[in-house]
Amino acid sequence: MAETLRTHESWRDPRLPVAERVADLLDRMTIEEKAGQLIGYWAESAREGEEVAPLPDDFGEPPPLEEVLQHGLGQLTRVFGTAPVRPADGAARLRELQARVTAANRFGIPAIAHEECLTGFMTWTATVFPCPLAWGASFDPELVEEMAGAVAATMRRAGVHQGLAPVLDVTRDYRWGRTEETIGEDPYLVGVVGTAYVRGLERAGLVATLKHFAGYSASRGGRNMAPVPMGPREFADVILEPFVLALREGGARAVMNSYADVDGVPMAANERLLTGLLREELGFTGIVVADYFAISFLEDMHGVAGSPGEAAALALRAGLDVELPTVRCYGAPLVEQVRRGTVPEEHLDRAVARVLALKCELGLLDDRVEETDAADLDPPELRHLARRLAEESVVLLANDGVLPLRARRLAVAGPLADDARAMMGCYTFPNHMAARYPDLPIGVEVSSLAEALRAELPGVELTATADGDVMVSDDGDIEAAVAAARGADVCVLALGDRAGMFGHGTSGEGCDAETLALPGRQRALAEAVLATGTPTVVVLLTGRPYALGGIADRAAAVVQTFFPGEEGAPAIAGVLSGRVEPSGRLPVSVPRHPGGQPGTYLRPRTGASSRWSAVDPEPLFAFGHGLTWTRFGYEDLRVDPSAPTDGTVEVAVTVRNLGDRPGTEVVQLYLSDPVASVVRPVRQLAGWARVRLAPDATARVTFSVHADRTAFTGTDLRRIVEPGTIEVAVGSSSEDLPLRGEFVLTGAERVLGAGRVLTVPVTVTP
Amino acid sequence: MAETLRTHESWRDPRLPVAERVADLLDRMTIEEKAGQLIGYWAESAREGEEVAPLPDDFGEPPPLEEVLQHGLGQLTRVFGTAPVRPADGAARLRELQARVTAANRFGIPAIAHEECLTGFMTWTATVFPCPLAWGASFDPELVEEMAGAVAATMRRAGVHQGLAPVLDVTRDYRWGRTEETIGEDPYLVGVVGTAYVRGLERAGLVATLKHFAGYSASRGGRNMAPVPMGPREFADVILEPFVLALREGGARAVMNSYADVDGVPMAANERLLTGLLREELGFTGIVVADYFAISFLEDMHGVAGSPGEAAALALRAGLDVELPTVRCYGAPLVEQVRRGTVPEEHLDRAVARVLALKCELGLLDDRVEETDAADLDPPELRHLARRLAEESVVLLANDGVLPLRARRLAVAGPLADDARAMMGCYTFPNHMAARYPDLPIGVEVSSLAEALRAELPGVELTATADGDVMVSDDGDIEAAVAAARGADVCVLALGDRAGMFGHGTSGEGCDAETLALPGRQRALAEAVLATGTPTVVVLLTGRPYALGGIADRAAAVVQTFFPGEEGAPAIAGVLSGRVEPSGRLPVSVPRHPGGQPGTYLRPRTGASSRWSAVDPEPLFAFGHGLTWTRFGYEDLRVDPSAPTDGTVEVAVTVRNLGDRPGTEVVQLYLSDPVASVVRPVRQLAGWARVRLAPDATARVTFSVHADRTAFTGTDLRRIVEPGTIEVAVGSSSEDLPLRGEFVLTGAERVLGAGRVLTVPVTVTP
Repeated sequence: MAETLRTHESWRDPRLPVAERVADLLDRMTIEEKAGQLIGYWAESAREGEEVAPLPDDFGEPPPLEEVLQHGLGQLTRVFGTAPVRPADGAARLRELQARVTAANRFGIPAIAHEECLTGFMTWTATVFPCPLAWGASFDPELVEEMAGAVAATMRRAGVHQGLAPVLDVTRDYRWGRTEETIGEDPYLVGVVGTAYVRGLERAGLVATLKHFAGYSASRGGRNMAPVPMGPREFADVILEPFVLALREGGARAVMNSYADVDGVPMAANERLLTGLLREELGFTGIVVADYFAISFLEDMHGVAGSPGEAAALALRAGLDVELPTVRCYGAPLVEQVRRGTVPEEHLDRAVARVLALKCELGLLDDRVEETDAADLDPPELRHLARRLAEESVVLLANDGVLPLRARRLAVAGPLADDARAMMGCYTFPNHMAARYPDLPIGVEVSSLAEALRAELPGVELTATADGDVMVSDDGDIEAAVAAARGADVCVLALGDRAGMFGHGTSGEGCDAETLALPGRQRALAEAVLATGTPTVVVLLTGRPYALGGIADRAAAVVQTFFPGEEGAPAIAGVLSGRVEPSGRLPVSVPRHPGGQPGTYLRPRTGASSRWSAVDPEPLFAFGHGLTWTRFGYEDLRVDPSAPTDGTVEVAVTVRNLGDRPGTEVVQLYLSDPVASVVRPVRQLAGWARVRLAPDATARVTFSVHADRTAFTGTDLRRIVEPGTIEVAVGSSSEDLPLRGEFVLTGAERVLGAGRVLTVPVTVTP
Repeated sequence: MAETLRTHESWRDPRLPVAERVADLLDRMTIEEKAGQLIGYWAESAREGEEVAPLPDDFGEPPPLEEVLQHGLGQLTRVFGTAPVRPADGAARLRELQARVTAANRFGIPAIAHEECLTGFMTWTATVFPCPLAWGASFDPELVEEMAGAVAATMRRAGVHQGLAPVLDVTRDYRWGRTEETIGEDPYLVGVVGTAYVRGLERAGLVATLKHFAGYSASRGGRNMAPVPMGPREFADVILEPFVLALREGGARAVMNSYADVDGVPMAANERLLTGLLREELGFTGIVVADYFAISFLEDMHGVAGSPGEAAALALRAGLDVELPTVRCYGAPLVEQVRRGTVPEEHLDRAVARVLALKCELGLLDDRVEETDAADLDPPELRHLARRLAEESVVLLANDGVLPLRARRLAVAGPLADDARAMMGCYTFPNHMAARYPDLPIGVEVSSLAEALRAELPGVELTATADGDVMVSDDGDIEAAVAAARGADVCVLALGDRAGMFGHGTSGEGCDAETLALPGRQRALAEAVLATGTPTVVVLLTGRPYALGGIADRAAAVVQTFFPGEEGAPAIAGVLSGRVEPSGRLPVSVPRHPGGQPGTYLRPRTGASSRWSAVDPEPLFAFGHGLTWTRFGYEDLRVDPSAPTDGTVEVAVTVRNLGDRPGTEVVQLYLSDPVASVVRPVRQLAGWARVRLAPDATARVTFSVHADRTAFTGTDLRRIVEPGTIEVAVGSSSEDLPLRGEFVLTGAERVLGAGRVLTVPVTVTP
């Protein structure tokens, strides 16, 4: 009988189009079964005796798994990521849960299994890659794509379908604890590098999840989840751009909402954004998932709903398809709303159809058990990728010649001198879970900076003094560092953050900073070490830029890294020794002073002058800055004199290695719009090329700048390309731009259409 | 012949309606004459040998006065306010200039003479009143109106027609240097107190100028003139409210634009605001004047115009009627634009008609010479008003019983201990001009705190140590203060700001702060004095709240004042001695920590919890807080259970003096909207009453809360009154609210109409 029935169930037929299968299946479902596809479940952890996942206590207990399962289940939440499971145990647990899910619902549909993957597969013993701010520093989307592809392949093999990355928030306030999760402060950099990551995931079959859509990074005071004061122009021109790029060019199949409210409207209830923009304007057909507990927050924090059912109604109407991490509003409360008619069943169907279509694409309607394999999650090829990206992300900010190191006696001091965890950000398994599992080994091999320097410099007499306390609470730490520096030719002083979650660190989710002063008493430590007179290389291992005025100018060299991952220490040591060519560039600015936030390089002329304000917003090191072992010269800028407002301008420049060592230049193109109908930033990145050059070698770099790249949101809130002069500047950073030119956009003002050109292709000819 | 002609000129007939006279006059004017009415001129200063007013050099020289005058002149800029003229000299100079203006143009029309009046008539030797933040602290609109009336009468007698005050910007970021010029961080407090000031000016015949319209106070990073990131809801609900109140209830006849751009649109070019909202929606018929150089800034800073003519066209189209302080864009460049047809002559006529109508109302078309009298600008009756307001503005933040002072040996220490200028804000003549005239006497009698305490406490042995250096650059200052404290029973430690302009101070225009740490090394000074163990009364003389965590909790008492004016020192001394009852309340919050800005008490629940962010936004002393010599109890709250969405709810409460001394309570009413269609602040001030009570006495305070007071801007950007529960809380501050109730708004959602109810009448029955 069952067999007979099945032959009539067209949804089971893999030869039929997805839409047809989905429509058939949807027809067969009860309201409860539909709602079941829209929820996640955070099942108990995989290891006997371990604690259950950290559901905040005021969200109440979800119903038991058995009860939920009978109607089907949309998602399984972080089976690998919540507790320190061994890969094989996690895979077994996932298989077991999927078998239960499949067996319990009458259609036999498994759940989508999702995991975090911000710095690799966020599970114990998996490769820890550099954090996104380090991806930005590499200015190397190809390598980021390669990394993402390798990560995704590993995750898919383990039975995971969806990764909750990348973060496409554009940094707006360095104090925000999640700055380390962003790719930088320029929307084009974030968009291009983020899109490469998406492409890497999606090409390997893993569903990429763009987050946080949208506006999270600009919260008032940099406080996590605080309201975002922002108008529609900034939102469209700065915040949305990376999402548009990653959807259009990356093919992401999932989007996650931002917790924030922007000008009073919580994103989880923003129909204009989640449906009007995302679906109707951008044509997105994937699923929109809730950031964890975000639907409940509509009631508990934002106060726009009076009950879980009202929260469900608002979110579903807006276009939020799936509740994560576990069921609270989209379960019984949503079912009740639909039964009462306060939520139209079309809203439910719309969301369920999207979920089922994705499951269909993933093969989850095809009645087969997925193979899972999660033996070694940190194989050599992944470590190698982690190493390459770490190396490319090291930014040499300043160097008086002390680097490469030639010291015979080296002191390695500072709170992070001998601390392997300092290489890793908040969204790495070890640091994410550090508060809950304080004694857990890191799970992968990670060197501290001191260890890596010992290996890197075998003949050097090396003293390491450090205790890992980023607050430098103890005067003894300062005294020990001073003593070590006094006894050495050169001191490497490792300063920075402890990444963690909600109060267990100085960087990471909830670990917002009041100012950009280095944490604790690190400034006092640095000043004491600098006062010894021993040439000091300051190495920063941070999740955000810190104010370095008064430190950088007295240090012999400054090396900025952003949580560079499990291969970070040898990468940094390689740069210090000279084995590795530094090639990273700042994806954020490094400020001079700790106050005055928010502010990034995307400043207009207004208020950017010390004439009008005692607070000088000029950074100490500009966006895009980074030194190498050599110097580069710029020659022969050629810019087409004009183009129509729907055309392309070629900007070509020759870059020359002027020194006697090879090096990699990141040739950067910036555009300015000196007279526009609204206030524009002084300049904005429009393209770049990583170019490695032997001594005396040159390369010709040609940017194809489409007029669409100059678009902005005008006074009537349409994105337009406006005729007029566009200034062009090319060079090594946003402040070091030796060549300037301009072109004129001619013809009529043009409203940016759906087919707008998003990227600036670059060719490099030796 | 001339006589004959005149009889036909109906514009000269004072019996005719203003509109008729204006229309006739406009008809007779050339384009040049029209443009002449739209410009100001900053004439050379009145005293021989003095420097000319500080025109920033990159704005170029204006044409000579003689050339400008022949076409008529709209405004004369600050004849009294630019140089230290004696009143009679200023009046003579103004008469002379007006005579020249009148004689030179063929209609014989004089200019409108405008001056600053933020803390009184801003000219040398005039009464220096408390700064606006002190008005806010008084919570006493009646007294503010009385002060404004007295100021205006003085100015009118001196021949001045228009005062460039009040500032109705709502404080959004304490770092902003102009915070001292605001009335506080609550839009209703700013609106009610600001409206009282407007009423005082206008009833005395002086044109009040509402500024800065709108959005200046929320600039990014608190940097003067930096862009304002803000959406339309916050703009309407927080920023515009005081302007609506002051236009509707105060009858202001002038508005000045904000320098800022909000979300990319400079306010000087914002047609929707200056015409759509101001004229069409609010029915404003007065003039819109440019903040100084703001039209030029459209070209020079905002980059939305390519030339002075384009800037003129944009500003005039938007609805900006008059260029100040001197002619640059609205002169020849505007005339040329009109001749070329790029500016419609209707735009010109519209602005000129408004200017002429105001001149007509002021009697300036009536061919008579105004009498001017400016003998004594600081008479006893004005000093008395300055004293009363100063006394009411002193906020006693904390007191362990040390106050009133009973010490026999008193040390008065700190950089502001013996500094009369510390009583005065940036927009007082002495401090505004301090950089240009460093040796100029203050011009009015002002005591320092030490002097006032000596007079107040004749039997007390008083040691004063101070040198006026707010940066505390010299270790000797700290040592001297510590020594003085050690030798005394009680130490009064005077900390705070030096008010000044553009880098010549720590508070005032352009004197933005990076953080809310006390300026210079004042914290170190305070800690050293507190460490002596001598009970210490910290007296703050500031233009913004500073972070007092770690100071306030160790001080015996803390007294917060905001530049209290020429009678500030005896007012403070009176509170310290016990002669004066402290009755001020905080119009801003006093933060615990120096970072984490921006943020005021108008926070929603989102992001306001230390659970989600390591940065705790809770203040040390809450908005509305202030102690007295007694305590008050609250009893018998009565709230109507419900009202229709267009009705009124009565909220009544009994307040009782529980102590044995008389005292003034500021009974405060706050409303909360726990479930709304957009995110709302946790609570917001809706009314207050200053109630003086003898020991054991009670008063019944009744607030008539119209539903309109609960309105907010909904998701579709209309201001609505939404049905639902409104929570009511009554008490002594925004955090000390012993009585809670609620009412329900019933019926349909209602869009706020033009006749909206703006204020909450309060009755107090003994």
